Amino acid sequence: MEVQIAVAKINKYAVSESGDSLEVVERPNGGISVVLADGQSSGRGAKAVSLMVVRKVISLLAEGVRDGAAARAASDALFTEKQGKVSCTLNIASVDLLTNTIVLTRNNPAPMAICRNGNVDCISTESVSLGTARDTRPVVNEINIEPGVIIVLYTDGLVHAGDRRGQRMDACTIIESMLEEQDPSPQSISDELLAHAVSLDDGRPADDISVVTIKVTSRTGDQARRMSVRLPIE
Amino acid sequence: MEVQIAVAKINKYAVSESGDSLEVVERPNGGISVVLADGQSSGRGAKAVSLMVVRKVISLLAEGVRDGAAARAASDALFTEKQGKVSCTLNIASVDLLTNTIVLTRNNPAPMAICRNGNVDCISTESVSLGTARDTRPVVNEINIEPGVIIVLYTDGLVHAGDRRGQRMDACTIIESMLEEQDPSPQSISDELLAHAVSLDDGRPADDISVVTIKVTSRTGDQARRMSVRLPIE
Repeated sequence: MEVQIAVAKINKYAVSESGDSLEVVERPNGGISVVLADGQSSGRGAKAVSLMVVRKVISLLAEGVRDGAAARAASDALFTEKQGKVSCTLNIASVDLLTNTIVLTRNNPAPMAICRNGNVDCISTESVSLGTARDTRPVVNEINIEPGVIIVLYTDGLVHAGDRRGQRMDACTIIESMLEEQDPSPQSISDELLAHAVSLDDGRPADDISVVTIKVTSRTGDQARRMSVRLPIE
Repeated sequence: MEVQIAVAKINKYAVSESGDSLEVVERPNGGISVVLADGQSSGRGAKAVSLMVVRKVISLLAEGVRDGAAARAASDALFTEKQGKVSCTLNIASVDLLTNTIVLTRNNPAPMAICRNGNVDCISTESVSLGTARDTRPVVNEINIEPGVIIVLYTDGLVHAGDRRGQRMDACTIIESMLEEQDPSPQSISDELLAHAVSLDDGRPADDISVVTIKVTSRTGDQARRMSVRLPIE
């Protein structure tokens, strides 16, 4: 099998710093984790908050702390530092080779999609952002690593795309229609969702938008790990 | 312009943990850094050392510490923890949007390649590993971000591939011939170098091998950042 992860990420229009931070790190007991945070508001302040949350989480994961505990710790740290006045969403998606599962930890009102056998489950269990209460808990979903599984998670820039023209996008429906037609690569899923959101915002994203797609395939090839990054610069 | 980074990474044959650690992180003042470390020997001990070095470096970079200073700090920390008995190589490649340069920081006897206008410079200035002396300094190269620049760096598993059969590979010559024939993507450069090394090792890599290729292109497209990861699992 092969797990493929693809990210597409764009800044709010005319803002040079994204309030969304994303890092991919190796897990000490095998596997990798994607950590995505979205700080309240946008620009430099939001960036500082989301970076602080992401860095806190990855340093705990590196020590072998479980994802849920890392999310709670990040919430308490943010609550303490900002006295409960600043919130930040957090998604952790871990490919855990110790348990052979994908662990999805969510402190984010934005839903996520879990697709198996062509069915798209839109997971919208209530989930609150980090940092505004002492007893914040994440919602955790754990699913087996098996070919055909696709997971899509995103920040609220995707949920609110089109709000200005009163035409909100429904990510899960778009994913469903993509899966019906073809066997899309994770990059094409992330790219198409992002492009759809940007077009609803008339080419000027009203917020930072990040989309992460994880796909498990039955591909067997060499044993090399691969990573690629594309960074547009002016 | 667009900066593209592509990594290919394989473990030593029949060893489940790679002694090479690699992380890509955002720089607080704009841009990204690739941090690659190779701990002495292989397996679990080497992994712990290289992970410690990488984590030390990325936490310092996150605070805005300059790359060279982060490398020195990681060396001193390793020297202190292991009493000078364990070495670790380190490469930091930073796309620094504050200075509009690519900063290449190297504490690694393995050379690296810098290609401009079709010419391949094989940079093999003497450079020592971290952790075995108090006054370890990195070799730093800084080049402007401009279309056509290609940088290739790697761990010593690539340098020593073929040693068993007395047929060492010359990475710079292979890169030269790739550049003569076509306009290779960074992923194809990393993949081809890795494949060549693995074949010299008769399909059973004698050491962990990591190859990182950075390419600056004149591509203009949307302003989205993209990342993809491919993780083979058994």
